[in-house]
Amino acid sequence: MPENLQVLLAARPKGAVGPECFALREAPLPEPAHGEVLVRHRFLSLDPYMRGRMDDVRSYSPPVALGAVMEGQSVGQVVADAAGFRAGEWVLGGRGWQLYSAVPAAGLSRIDAEAAPPSAYLGVLGMPGTTAWVGVTKILGVKPGETFCVSAASGAVGQVAGQLAKRIGARAVGIAGGAGKCRHVVEALGFDACCDHRDAALAQHLAEACPDGVDAAFENTGAAPLHAVWPLLNEFARVAFCGMVGETSADPRPPGPSLVQVVRKRLRLEGFIVYDHPREFAAWRKLGAGLLARGELAWREDVTQGLERAPEAFRAMLAGRNFGKTVVALG
Amino acid sequence: MPENLQVLLAARPKGAVGPECFALREAPLPEPAHGEVLVRHRFLSLDPYMRGRMDDVRSYSPPVALGAVMEGQSVGQVVADAAGFRAGEWVLGGRGWQLYSAVPAAGLSRIDAEAAPPSAYLGVLGMPGTTAWVGVTKILGVKPGETFCVSAASGAVGQVAGQLAKRIGARAVGIAGGAGKCRHVVEALGFDACCDHRDAALAQHLAEACPDGVDAAFENTGAAPLHAVWPLLNEFARVAFCGMVGETSADPRPPGPSLVQVVRKRLRLEGFIVYDHPREFAAWRKLGAGLLARGELAWREDVTQGLERAPEAFRAMLAGRNFGKTVVALG
Repeated sequence: MPENLQVLLAARPKGAVGPECFALREAPLPEPAHGEVLVRHRFLSLDPYMRGRMDDVRSYSPPVALGAVMEGQSVGQVVADAAGFRAGEWVLGGRGWQLYSAVPAAGLSRIDAEAAPPSAYLGVLGMPGTTAWVGVTKILGVKPGETFCVSAASGAVGQVAGQLAKRIGARAVGIAGGAGKCRHVVEALGFDACCDHRDAALAQHLAEACPDGVDAAFENTGAAPLHAVWPLLNEFARVAFCGMVGETSADPRPPGPSLVQVVRKRLRLEGFIVYDHPREFAAWRKLGAGLLARGELAWREDVTQGLERAPEAFRAMLAGRNFGKTVVALG
Repeated sequence: MPENLQVLLAARPKGAVGPECFALREAPLPEPAHGEVLVRHRFLSLDPYMRGRMDDVRSYSPPVALGAVMEGQSVGQVVADAAGFRAGEWVLGGRGWQLYSAVPAAGLSRIDAEAAPPSAYLGVLGMPGTTAWVGVTKILGVKPGETFCVSAASGAVGQVAGQLAKRIGARAVGIAGGAGKCRHVVEALGFDACCDHRDAALAQHLAEACPDGVDAAFENTGAAPLHAVWPLLNEFARVAFCGMVGETSADPRPPGPSLVQVVRKRLRLEGFIVYDHPREFAAWRKLGAGLLARGELAWREDVTQGLERAPEAFRAMLAGRNFGKTVVALG
């Protein structure tokens, strides 16, 4: 009889997330109740929003309780026929940093593991891809000829966002950490330029890469990339705030940029969370699958092997040491 | 033959605006060209936006040149029949801190000096009133049952904004400088509460005055009032940035609040300038005149006598020592 393996929230982070925040535990397999399906997770998605769940503060969803399994989404396979699902079917919707979960049938959706690799449903076709889609099209309304700028450009959301902006006809400029990522963003993803936020001259390089200023900015990190794009914003520019992963671990929070120009330039700054746009998931999955199938959407994952290494992979992602969408392969 | 009297921009401010920034000059009367009308100004409007025009920086309108007449709008009377206007008619549209200007007929609009005092067309029925109208209805979309908060609540824009929010059915909470203004805001303008930004406990008082948080904030000042409202913003709250008069004189600019919560709370922060909404002027003037006529809109002016005291009145307004819409009576 297999055992479940789980990663628990062992301590709330003070500042940066340390290894002491997590604990591994073996547990018996969950018993599916009536209407539930037992799922063996195959790929676990690691995403920046999880950092917020580790804090005991009011947010758009409740925090993870101390001692509870860390929150997260997986793709996996049904273990035994139940509630209309068949053993072996691939599904999206397994919950938590663990190998198995029992999920109400209504919380699962079948995925087509032939049309795209299963892990793609956690990334380019899943939550991060939909986030990019909503941000670029609904929140920012990027238009042809505009200059679009995105931070964490090689990350799960950024890489899709920039490619979408390019398809719309905008100039796409990325910000990423390190020369290797920047090269990838330009050469493999087709951005017009990419600037290294580890370079002390980021502000100057970004200004050179955006000679006509910035009309639409997609903010995934806060911190240095936000401060670099701030003075380049044009009149009537929009900034979509999707994540502030570069600032959420700081205690106390660093101040933001001066808001004086918000009036002068009539800026619109708007935070959004993809789950407020539930209809867009199916819309993007269909559109994105078509782009993938035609080879019109490049996509990079950063895969770590083994659940026990999930905390390490998560901490690396928060520090920007991932390269592409962070996924844990669970065997 | 009367002479013109003018206030010139003599020096650009370094930090706070000092008396050395202005110079008085006597000048010959302007000669109206064909199609222009000579206007004797009667009331000059002083407004926070003028502070921005004194700096040599790109903004939504060009800066005032050194040695040029300060920018401003007046109501006044036509001196001699011209271009379809009759001597003695009251008009809005005289330009500059001066007693006379020659204005193209298309830049003038007749005002009904019987329906409301002429100076009202500079304030409650003019640009500041329209600004309040656009901010509350178009930018913020204030709804019944929401909590609305406005800084500079006894000022030209704030007093109208709060009364409009009340009419919509929102709870209106003001922030103003000093106990006298706060009392006026509650007792004469009908706000539900008003907090004194000079009080060190502003943040605590504002939290007590907004037990359900803040859904829509109308930002006229920046600085302490902005930082006090910031942690009270509810999920999906909107902030209209109309002015940052409390921060524009600071050099270097003070940092803004942390933007981390913009994502978590899905905030929308939007700067606006009333001149981007030109159709709203006539709409508001008609609606506002009806409210005034029915006694449903309270209105307070701070009137200084004599053009030579305009610099002093302007500096007092920037320091928050005005009480109501700042106007200079020109005799």
